[in-house]
Amino acid sequence: MSLSMHSASVPVIAHMLGSMLPWLDKAQAHADARKFDSANYMGLRLAPDMLPFVKQIQIACDMAKGCVARLAGQEVPKWDDDETTLDDLRARIRRTRDYVNGFTPEQIDGSDAREIALTMRAGERRFSGEDYLKSYVLPNVYFHATTAYALLRHAGVELGKRDFLGA
Amino acid sequence: MSLSMHSASVPVIAHMLGSMLPWLDKAQAHADARKFDSANYMGLRLAPDMLPFVKQIQIACDMAKGCVARLAGQEVPKWDDDETTLDDLRARIRRTRDYVNGFTPEQIDGSDAREIALTMRAGERRFSGEDYLKSYVLPNVYFHATTAYALLRHAGVELGKRDFLGA
Repeated sequence: MSLSMHSASVPVIAHMLGSMLPWLDKAQAHADARKFDSANYMGLRLAPDMLPFVKQIQIACDMAKGCVARLAGQEVPKWDDDETTLDDLRARIRRTRDYVNGFTPEQIDGSDAREIALTMRAGERRFSGEDYLKSYVLPNVYFHATTAYALLRHAGVELGKRDFLGA
Repeated sequence: MSLSMHSASVPVIAHMLGSMLPWLDKAQAHADARKFDSANYMGLRLAPDMLPFVKQIQIACDMAKGCVARLAGQEVPKWDDDETTLDDLRARIRRTRDYVNGFTPEQIDGSDAREIALTMRAGERRFSGEDYLKSYVLPNVYFHATTAYALLRHAGVELGKRDFLGA
């Protein structure tokens, strides 16, 4: 027995997205208790040359939707990066989770050998479907999710590792 | 075709550990340039109730060694948490990477259905090998690696996402 490309991607990524929703609820509660505008979270950065909170969530979502679309051989849908509030980000995370969950094993399984070409700043990069998932998508999803989590923790939001791993 | 348990664990985790080594080199260079003791990184936290830098690296390493040992049905070796310098942490990361790389496909493949029992603060938790890898080990390895990275970024070390993903 071994892992299928679907089981190694769709439920794993959908779970990470679902875990992020309660972080935003806790961030909102923290803002309400401290009486500040929760939109202030959107621009938080751990260093001035790092992307802000809003981008961390947007990129995590984009990695997720790009993954399932590419593995299934579909065009990656383009979504505007126009979120300005935590509610907007919640909606984006839910939309992404629904999109990811819409892919069936029949669409994703067998994509381990599919060639995936990404256009990056440094030029085109080619992966097998397996390497794209293991070496690019999952590290990026977890990287941006953890960075968003770290920003909220640094801002005083009451989160713990269980919130990261999800129920 | 599908992923093997070995290909989804050993090279992925060994790669993440290998990517961390240059972060410590850059942290050392930053300390040298600013003339502070690089051991000062060890206690850095993003919030007073978060684990410090040294623990983030130690836990990432422990998740890695626990993963391959448990999937192979071996006793998890106990290592002291006695690192006090960046050189000590480098040695731990290298030791962990060597340990992980020592596991062959024959030892790991087929472990997707193996029962894995972990003793946690909340009690015992049981996973299949597949769920243990996908829902516990990989999120934890990336969580602690990203948190260590974020601490160094926050401290002014010149790192970018390429350093996170590794060469």
